Amino acid sequence: MELYSERGYEQTTVAEIARRAGLTERTFFRHFADKREVLFSGSANLQDAMVSAVANAPESAAPIDAVAAGIEAAGGFLQDRDYSRRRQAIIAANTVLQERELIKMASLASAIARALRKRGVSDPAASLTAEAGTAVFRIAFERWIDEGNEKDLRVLIRESFEELRSLVA
Amino acid sequence: MELYSERGYEQTTVAEIARRAGLTERTFFRHFADKREVLFSGSANLQDAMVSAVANAPESAAPIDAVAAGIEAAGGFLQDRDYSRRRQAIIAANTVLQERELIKMASLASAIARALRKRGVSDPAASLTAEAGTAVFRIAFERWIDEGNEKDLRVLIRESFEELRSLVA
Repeated sequence: MELYSERGYEQTTVAEIARRAGLTERTFFRHFADKREVLFSGSANLQDAMVSAVANAPESAAPIDAVAAGIEAAGGFLQDRDYSRRRQAIIAANTVLQERELIKMASLASAIARALRKRGVSDPAASLTAEAGTAVFRIAFERWIDEGNEKDLRVLIRESFEELRSLVA
Repeated sequence: MELYSERGYEQTTVAEIARRAGLTERTFFRHFADKREVLFSGSANLQDAMVSAVANAPESAAPIDAVAAGIEAAGGFLQDRDYSRRRQAIIAANTVLQERELIKMASLASAIARALRKRGVSDPAASLTAEAGTAVFRIAFERWIDEGNEKDLRVLIRESFEELRSLVA
């Protein structure tokens, strides 16, 4: 990712990334489907962490509380604010990467909705709660990587949930 | 759009679309940037209708009520359920079209957030309300085009708003 920051995403080739990482191109392609995936390979782990937290919330938890547990699990997963800031700056500068990010967020919302349905939540409640939770996550994340923000991501997630609650009340 | 339903989106050429519509290819490209835009050319009008309704909500309206007015304006804009069903079936069958749809929805949420900021709503409230409203719209729309659903889109939008309210309460 350093190379994307230094030279720009478009200008960086897989050969250069592999060289910087001390890998052959063949090894690179064993780990990543393409050069976009260097930026998105963490998304699957993030999604898994969120989905298990939703699944493992207490049986008595309301759908919104199960989703809150999932989103807060993501808050524990993302720790390196500087890395996330640099990554987001690369994505913001490239339309194709922004689209990939939108797709990953849509897939996250669907995965959370599925986890809620497995808990016995019916639709439209499952989809609505998953979408609302994903929106809270996205907005808390944006605030977290905003320059000058020093608050912990989990605190921002809790604040954004409270804000949503008072906005729709 | 008929041709996409009959022959599949991938298999349909611009030449065939133009012929069916009684246009030359040159005239086609005066109206649409590419063949995807046949399906998405209404999105800009939809977005404009929603944004003006948000802007024109009573000054005293809370952010969520201004957004509700915007979303309900979309309910008035979309009247032809059969058309929307056919269109959605074409999009669901093609990844590139699904991505374009996600991009249009993200752009809709940003436009609504901007309209709220112009009303003096600060962030994160503006983004959160816009995202929540867009989620309500998407879910009400999915229910509306679901086979067997006979309810009016505006009724479904109101129901989904109520559902969101009780879910996050």
